[in-house]
Amino acid sequence: MFGPGSIVGILGGGQLGKMLAVAASRLGLEVHIYAPEPDAIARSVAKFNTVAAYDDAASLTAFAKVCDVVTYEFENVPAQTAAIAGENSALRPGALALEVAQDRLTEKTFLRDKAGVPVIGFKDVKSVFDLKRAGKEFGWPIILKTRRFGYDGKGQVKVDSEAGAQAAFDSLSGDLIAEAFAPFAREVSIVAARGLSGDFAAYPLIENLHRNHILHTSTCPTHSDKGVAKDMAKSIMDALDYVGVMATEFFQMDDGSLIINEIAPRVHNSGHLTQNAGCTDQFEQHIRAICGRPLGGAVPAHITQMTNLIGDDVAGLPALEADPAANIHLYGKGAPRPGRKMGHVNRIIKD
Amino acid sequence: MFGPGSIVGILGGGQLGKMLAVAASRLGLEVHIYAPEPDAIARSVAKFNTVAAYDDAASLTAFAKVCDVVTYEFENVPAQTAAIAGENSALRPGALALEVAQDRLTEKTFLRDKAGVPVIGFKDVKSVFDLKRAGKEFGWPIILKTRRFGYDGKGQVKVDSEAGAQAAFDSLSGDLIAEAFAPFAREVSIVAARGLSGDFAAYPLIENLHRNHILHTSTCPTHSDKGVAKDMAKSIMDALDYVGVMATEFFQMDDGSLIINEIAPRVHNSGHLTQNAGCTDQFEQHIRAICGRPLGGAVPAHITQMTNLIGDDVAGLPALEADPAANIHLYGKGAPRPGRKMGHVNRIIKD
Repeated sequence: MFGPGSIVGILGGGQLGKMLAVAASRLGLEVHIYAPEPDAIARSVAKFNTVAAYDDAASLTAFAKVCDVVTYEFENVPAQTAAIAGENSALRPGALALEVAQDRLTEKTFLRDKAGVPVIGFKDVKSVFDLKRAGKEFGWPIILKTRRFGYDGKGQVKVDSEAGAQAAFDSLSGDLIAEAFAPFAREVSIVAARGLSGDFAAYPLIENLHRNHILHTSTCPTHSDKGVAKDMAKSIMDALDYVGVMATEFFQMDDGSLIINEIAPRVHNSGHLTQNAGCTDQFEQHIRAICGRPLGGAVPAHITQMTNLIGDDVAGLPALEADPAANIHLYGKGAPRPGRKMGHVNRIIKD
Repeated sequence: MFGPGSIVGILGGGQLGKMLAVAASRLGLEVHIYAPEPDAIARSVAKFNTVAAYDDAASLTAFAKVCDVVTYEFENVPAQTAAIAGENSALRPGALALEVAQDRLTEKTFLRDKAGVPVIGFKDVKSVFDLKRAGKEFGWPIILKTRRFGYDGKGQVKVDSEAGAQAAFDSLSGDLIAEAFAPFAREVSIVAARGLSGDFAAYPLIENLHRNHILHTSTCPTHSDKGVAKDMAKSIMDALDYVGVMATEFFQMDDGSLIINEIAPRVHNSGHLTQNAGCTDQFEQHIRAICGRPLGGAVPAHITQMTNLIGDDVAGLPALEADPAANIHLYGKGAPRPGRKMGHVNRIIKD
């Protein structure tokens, strides 16, 4: 159990690392940021900093040795990086969560076979023939995705019919996976924490709206699902022997049923609203979990909504500042670029 | 108007500086801590740091020149320090607030004559004769205080009768002030912000309970006073042409009437509860004000109570962590010492 004065190492120095660092500081912990970018924004709120590549074994070893526990803010931490961190410190969540989350094929197979939760139909695609077969099996359209490194709609294409299969296949590189198209009514997520002793605490179901494949707003609590989504998230986290906060993204159908889209083994954009929900926020919850401390309360005091500030959205800052209901969170990034997450705003929308 | 990327300088590196730094980071600003202590706790969450004495003119000048605005976390910033900061940057709040707040005689005179607000009877004490005269004028008991550097009950003594005057006078050193004893029913405070254009936003009245002369709990909102306390705070802040957050401490009598005890030209322990009150917290409010930005909402979403963690109180951390209603804020100080503020806990006590 790591308490005040202990050092939390974070792989990655973006906004998630920054907000994790602030949460750690609020618990009296110190933070060490490891990232290749000298000007990573999380460094501003960390006591210790290492600037080195993720494949720099010597720097990684030195970093992990001085940290009581190491965590990460992104799921694409290389396996070898995770291994070195785990050998020289406590790595939480562990390497299995990374391995599963980094590859859509591994992920869906694990979710279906190990966690026993419903996933969309999927098929490994090594050729255009495989893609066409997926279309025949699941029906068109098919979503063709790269197995690795996809985010915010990047690395995926919707294939409407067999006629478009070749062009779609040629448009993506790397290992591919075909996924059945889910005619979902809405996208929802569960942000939950699992402690070192297996204790579990989930925030209520969150509804997520996307624009241009990027998360636009999240609202919590949303439609009740009788706890089914929480149970699924718990099954996954138990199967992973997970420690920390994890997000599970679902497609919810018109009849209320849920299919898991993907997991993110880290704090998650849809959980940012917990910062102003009147309970422990996801960043503190993650720090508590990885430090082996009891999880905090996860019952919001009111309905809270988060809106991302993407790219030029920050030009609306004066209006936001003039709105007494807007809780503003800016990340301190430089110039806005299209699609760049510059900050977010949380609002209590109902007591 | 200073926005994302601007640098906020803070004189002092304790818990108030630390929480100001976190609030600044949330607005995308960078922070520069100036303090003599190499291990000042606020440094952990600041991008820039200067370790130098407050009377080191060269270091102060260099510090102020690289900051867009300089503020302070304690009212005993030396006048010369403030002058150098003000010559080389924007100093907010200004030097007048420091001058007034540093000396109880100057403060009470200013409050009575310039701000036109009610203060307790007071008398400059240069001799035991002055003290006895105060007792005759106001009635015993009299509170004898040092004019400067008193805090948490230090530098003051209650004098029950003329017989005790000599011993009391001898027990304190430096310039002294005699204050009439206020038979108050409770102690309350107003934490309010005044912006660069004179805009004003006050949190509701806060009730404060002390133990051993140290703040123990604060609760907000408390008994209504029909806005009288807010009006008084505004009169004072207008008279000071104040920019930033200021606390005004009052004695409230049984009949509800208010007398001002003292002001603190900074964020204040009784305002910590705003961090979990569902509105803009006092730290962000201060940063907004000194950066010339609009003030945030100051209407709490619920009744919130803060309890300080003093000295060994932190031994109760496991129980606090197990309490889902406890919002824990630890400062990351080293070993607990009697009377040392180690952290605080905020609780929503009523929606």
